[in-house]
Amino acid sequence: MSAEAAADVAAVESVNQEFYAAFEHADLDRMSAVWGTDENGYEIGCVHPGWPLLRGRSEVLRSWALIMANTPYIQFVLTDVQVRVFGDVAVLTCAENILTAGEAGESSFAAGGRVVSTNTFTRTPDGWRLWLHHGSPVLQGEVDEDEES
Amino acid sequence: MSAEAAADVAAVESVNQEFYAAFEHADLDRMSAVWGTDENGYEIGCVHPGWPLLRGRSEVLRSWALIMANTPYIQFVLTDVQVRVFGDVAVLTCAENILTAGEAGESSFAAGGRVVSTNTFTRTPDGWRLWLHHGSPVLQGEVDEDEES
Repeated sequence: MSAEAAADVAAVESVNQEFYAAFEHADLDRMSAVWGTDENGYEIGCVHPGWPLLRGRSEVLRSWALIMANTPYIQFVLTDVQVRVFGDVAVLTCAENILTAGEAGESSFAAGGRVVSTNTFTRTPDGWRLWLHHGSPVLQGEVDEDEES
Repeated sequence: MSAEAAADVAAVESVNQEFYAAFEHADLDRMSAVWGTDENGYEIGCVHPGWPLLRGRSEVLRSWALIMANTPYIQFVLTDVQVRVFGDVAVLTCAENILTAGEAGESSFAAGGRVVSTNTFTRTPDGWRLWLHHGSPVLQGEVDEDEES
């Protein structure tokens, strides 16, 4: 990998970390800064686990405001992070291993499960920005020989 | 949109249709032809609804063989198809409205629900090929104001 390609991968991974940090800190300004703009007829898009696709900055950021307001505590440990850069677009896949708080006031955490995400970033004049987030619940641990789709 | 860009969008939509047709016909050869190859250190990837990410042609195609063997009937009606082409990569999002058969022998169909998918294709010498499929279950119809993530 060239030094330039390695720098792109590192930059994309950094913005991806900032995406999860913004959620962990329930900081809508930081979340807003991670996302790109709606441009050239292409709106940003977001699939929260179990949700349909939301399109456009206003709808996506409103959903984050709602989710943050309803999440007392959340922490991510990312595993299996893989980045592929194609010129001005980058596709990152990762597994989100999630800790969330139980009822408000509880001090113990319940393992909140596992989400698999595809995060697609575009190169902008301000750096890499998130264009499409697709997160989905992992409802099984291992692929079972008898498992149906 | 230039004529060249429109041709790319049409070609990507066509391969995407072939992907779902291959599944509907339970034709593993057609499914195999839709997918790209593992190359340059980048394996193809597939997230079936509720599954973790599978990586690599052999694992991905084995999963399709299993799923097809366990799906007596499936039919897709795609809605909200949007394609964005970035040079040699294209990202297509769509909603899969699914009809599946009930128990073997039943003649009536049950609406099998709705899946949202992000399908990422790369341009190859043989045309556009699927590189990453991410399908996830839509567990709610409408975004509720009180909904949590």
